[in-house]
Amino acid sequence: MTLSVSGGHGAVERINRFLRRIITGRYPHQQQQENNHPKQNSKRFEQENTKTQQQKTNKTIQADDRRTPHPKSVKPRRLAVSGRCRKLRLSEENRQRMASSGEEVSNKQLIFRDYVTGFPQESDMYVTTGTVKLKVSEDSNGVLLKNLYLSCDPYMRILMKKQEGVGGFSSYTPGSPLTGFGVSKVLDSRNPEFKEGDLVWGITGWEEYSLITNPQVLFKILHTDVPLSYYTGILGMPGLTAYAGFYEVSSPKKGENVFISAASGAVGQLVGQFAKPMGCYVVGSAGSKDKVDLLKNKLGFDEAFNYKEEHDLDAALKRCFPEGIDIYFENVGGKMLDAVLLNMRPHGRIAVCGMISQYNLDQPEGVHNLMSIIYKRVRLEGFGAPDYFPQHPKFLDIVLPYIREGKIKYIEDIVEGLEKGPGAFIGLFKGQNVGKQVVVVARE
Amino acid sequence: MTLSVSGGHGAVERINRFLRRIITGRYPHQQQQENNHPKQNSKRFEQENTKTQQQKTNKTIQADDRRTPHPKSVKPRRLAVSGRCRKLRLSEENRQRMASSGEEVSNKQLIFRDYVTGFPQESDMYVTTGTVKLKVSEDSNGVLLKNLYLSCDPYMRILMKKQEGVGGFSSYTPGSPLTGFGVSKVLDSRNPEFKEGDLVWGITGWEEYSLITNPQVLFKILHTDVPLSYYTGILGMPGLTAYAGFYEVSSPKKGENVFISAASGAVGQLVGQFAKPMGCYVVGSAGSKDKVDLLKNKLGFDEAFNYKEEHDLDAALKRCFPEGIDIYFENVGGKMLDAVLLNMRPHGRIAVCGMISQYNLDQPEGVHNLMSIIYKRVRLEGFGAPDYFPQHPKFLDIVLPYIREGKIKYIEDIVEGLEKGPGAFIGLFKGQNVGKQVVVVARE
Repeated sequence: MTLSVSGGHGAVERINRFLRRIITGRYPHQQQQENNHPKQNSKRFEQENTKTQQQKTNKTIQADDRRTPHPKSVKPRRLAVSGRCRKLRLSEENRQRMASSGEEVSNKQLIFRDYVTGFPQESDMYVTTGTVKLKVSEDSNGVLLKNLYLSCDPYMRILMKKQEGVGGFSSYTPGSPLTGFGVSKVLDSRNPEFKEGDLVWGITGWEEYSLITNPQVLFKILHTDVPLSYYTGILGMPGLTAYAGFYEVSSPKKGENVFISAASGAVGQLVGQFAKPMGCYVVGSAGSKDKVDLLKNKLGFDEAFNYKEEHDLDAALKRCFPEGIDIYFENVGGKMLDAVLLNMRPHGRIAVCGMISQYNLDQPEGVHNLMSIIYKRVRLEGFGAPDYFPQHPKFLDIVLPYIREGKIKYIEDIVEGLEKGPGAFIGLFKGQNVGKQVVVVARE
Repeated sequence: MTLSVSGGHGAVERINRFLRRIITGRYPHQQQQENNHPKQNSKRFEQENTKTQQQKTNKTIQADDRRTPHPKSVKPRRLAVSGRCRKLRLSEENRQRMASSGEEVSNKQLIFRDYVTGFPQESDMYVTTGTVKLKVSEDSNGVLLKNLYLSCDPYMRILMKKQEGVGGFSSYTPGSPLTGFGVSKVLDSRNPEFKEGDLVWGITGWEEYSLITNPQVLFKILHTDVPLSYYTGILGMPGLTAYAGFYEVSSPKKGENVFISAASGAVGQLVGQFAKPMGCYVVGSAGSKDKVDLLKNKLGFDEAFNYKEEHDLDAALKRCFPEGIDIYFENVGGKMLDAVLLNMRPHGRIAVCGMISQYNLDQPEGVHNLMSIIYKRVRLEGFGAPDYFPQHPKFLDIVLPYIREGKIKYIEDIVEGLEKGPGAFIGLFKGQNVGKQVVVVARE
């Protein structure tokens, strides 16, 4: 008998299948990293570290949402709650008991209502509570996850459209939970790669518990001396995106001129900080004065501008780059891309990571200045982090020391509670988030 | 004293300066090639070979224009003409006499009237006759050329627009001759790289004689057992464009699916023939039934379609490429590019060589489907032959044997006489030419 998660998890599996296809090899868990791996039951520092990081970076991340008490929604059904520590302890005891028995518990889920056209609304998603058995079927290869942190990523909007075969992506299924990258804890596993108690990051459901029957895009977290939520961002898909997009796709050279749009976002903030140590001149665009200040004063960008206040993007770019742009890290598309094309230097590179300005349009805007790529012999290259998953361990080797030594700043925008997921997700398209948008489902 | 060519030659020099900047090294004249080089005064086979090539390929190139007698316009002033052989012999004798004395002769020129908007007209150019001294000044580094074949290339339309600093290109100067690639004979030289009697290809003026004061984009022709006109096409800039665009930019793999627009043109016809021996499936688009037949029946394309008869380009591409396109060799831009973007396979490459459909538009069409390059992780790369000039000798080593052995077909569309230049050039944008459009100024 196969244990089931109530509510469809088909979308998770489809994403997994897609990602599996495009990953060139199996994820190489590096032995040397495992040797450094703290014991699974070692003390977790994530909360202390998160606070430290907050204090180091910017007040905007010390938002009320971050201080929201652990939401009631997270408590497993039938658990007495008398304070956070007691609740967690009891939860753990009960979880173990229930896991061994395959007992059903409630499972709060964020359901995708129906295909979306135009700007997404909170009402395009709704919360429901199903049930889940906390044990994986004996004939399964799956893992049962307790989801901790969920990542709000712009690409998810693309999956809300009804479309087939767009590069292997499948749309979300109406009536099923959203899916996306997250950080989770393994409650039960029939997969030899994972065991109970493992912390993992990868594709999971927007729900309290997810059964992942084919966990190919689930990666064990081996370093827990940094905030766990970082694996939704700087240490997860967006971090790998920034790393691959800059070092691999952009072919950067010392001292080049780098422009980054959506520069204070999850990816952009990191690209700028990768470019600076190479002696690059780095300019970012963002959508508010606060974000521009953040880029210039906290994240070490040489220059930044608020695109909403520039009536002529071409002029803004010419002001910032009188000698032109060598590398454009593209996160927004549309008018910004058109303006950038006029300002590229010969043999410039455009790493096309995303086009968030276009995701809510039924008909994307036309880009008119593509002839520039001939005149300037420019390379535009679309890419996605999944192609670089096999390089993730190498990426961690590089970026973890930077984090530990405080050489890289990382800004998160955290909301507490699955119920706040829709607002947080939609906020991405309003420029509401400052830094990486994370939804906390549970802290342990 | 600097000897001058009447009429401005500033545009030639500007193009030369631009190209010089982007060439990474000096043109490496290969010694081993020089060893194979027939003596400069050896019999020329180009006319015989041209006829052979005509018979081999397609009747369309046996057009009346090709059979036009040597135009009167080519005769140097003051030369008696009594039949072609006698004329050439007398011309040579007189030229030598005049060259040594620096005598002035008439110089028919095709003048660029003024900046062009919209579709170019023949009246945007006009013929005039100036004078030229047939000797280079002693204090110059230049060469004096007698122009033989001129190349009609779509990029020239871009130089007819008034614009500054488009990737280093400078517009043509109103009142000065057009410039472009051509094949010429050196009448006099103060440059150590060239000597009287050398045959060269490179940037020259649309006129009978051109003084090139800084001949950095002039390359000695070392192999004359093929038609000289080929150095405006398969052995010159368009050939190098096809070679670099396919082998270098497109990163082809055995058996991939290749689509080529403007496939019967100077570049497209070669790309298809480069792709076939790699086991690629090759489809071309062109603008007439005759061209489609040529692609399928003469040039070895697997499939071809007339884009003017397809009301839905996306459907046409899906019909030809049910599994998608790995490589698109882009010559046209606009709607075709938009349709292709919907049909690219993951990790596809688009070598962006030209966008002829856009050159006559004041505002280029918008391209809407660029998000596909993210979904499919597609690379678009603009390129130009000048970046690959240093590889030209290697290119010749590869392509010359193919030509000699008849393994590659090459179709030219030749008109006789500088006066026919405007019509031939404008014909490029009407799809009038079948194969490489060449203008004969003189045959020797």
